[in-house]
Amino acid sequence: MTRATSRRPGGRTARNTAAVLEATLAELGGSGYADLTVERVAARSGVHKATIYRRWGGVDELLAAALEQADHDSWTPPDTGSLESDLRALGEEVAAGFSSDDEEGSVATATIAAAFQSPAAAEALRAFMEERLRRCAEVVERAERRGEVPEGTDAAEVVRAAVAPVYFRLFISREEGAGQAAARAARVAAEAAKAGEFRGSPPGR
Amino acid sequence: MTRATSRRPGGRTARNTAAVLEATLAELGGSGYADLTVERVAARSGVHKATIYRRWGGVDELLAAALEQADHDSWTPPDTGSLESDLRALGEEVAAGFSSDDEEGSVATATIAAAFQSPAAAEALRAFMEERLRRCAEVVERAERRGEVPEGTDAAEVVRAAVAPVYFRLFISREEGAGQAAARAARVAAEAAKAGEFRGSPPGR
Repeated sequence: MTRATSRRPGGRTARNTAAVLEATLAELGGSGYADLTVERVAARSGVHKATIYRRWGGVDELLAAALEQADHDSWTPPDTGSLESDLRALGEEVAAGFSSDDEEGSVATATIAAAFQSPAAAEALRAFMEERLRRCAEVVERAERRGEVPEGTDAAEVVRAAVAPVYFRLFISREEGAGQAAARAARVAAEAAKAGEFRGSPPGR
Repeated sequence: MTRATSRRPGGRTARNTAAVLEATLAELGGSGYADLTVERVAARSGVHKATIYRRWGGVDELLAAALEQADHDSWTPPDTGSLESDLRALGEEVAAGFSSDDEEGSVATATIAAAFQSPAAAEALRAFMEERLRRCAEVVERAERRGEVPEGTDAAEVVRAAVAPVYFRLFISREEGAGQAAARAARVAAEAAKAGEFRGSPPGR
């Protein structure tokens, strides 16, 4: 879900920016939003805290900038040849990403947790997920070009239906089996998309 | 999602228990898990903190007991006459419950947030959701008796598919439209159940 370790070319300002935003995500993933402070980001990044305050303002702005930078990674959705298997791979990637013990997994989980504690973090998460759903639309657009699903299928709705049961198990029902859930959710979403259930706006909207 | 205000008959111990567990949920909903302390629960409930420590041990045990009591409420799932409309009503109830400004809404949201911060809270949430999914199975069992869905349909899986897109919008993608999403998710889940997609164990398990 997050990849903010790409270094930008450029001078000291660019290096400082990269160091500060990386430190922000590392602190978030390590200790969580409640303990995220400019002081800790300064200590970890080696950039003076006055510089951080001047440039970003505070913790919420740092977090928004770090997630926005993560938006600019090169992630693309799976391309396996069929809608169902693309959606399945996507759901399995979500499950594996959050379950991993590495920094990416803990940052991703901490970001969802932070959204409960801060409206600014919630807005940053919303923007991040919106961009991810936008990129995932390609999976459904390819299926439309292959004639798997009817024209006018709401791509984001198909993707939401495929990944939501994975997130539900991870963070709401707190059950095992999130990775396994991806297979069934993908099949249900793909079949519904083929049947035209995701054409146009949702019912009742 | 939570209803822990039911009073139990009985003597002072029962009244103290009810007061402490109510105060626990009120503090959780008001200030969140990070600020939940035995001292605050004692102050709000009027029960001495030594009594609380002796009886429950600490904050995590209080939270588990409060959620377990909420499990014992009389909530039952909607019974509207068809699987799709039952699932839709269920999803709309979830969306409305979390969106409400009353104590129930804030306690429910704070419980999901607390699960990120404490393994004991995560376990309490898991147990609570397991019980809710168990009760919701009735919706699918009625549909099976009506002949709407084939025998051997995995009831909890149908319910997860119907409510997961609502939770996804509320807490993961942080989008508007959770209530409206319930209608489409219900239709997709009900159609898939009728087609036998939820028979037996999930694929790949």
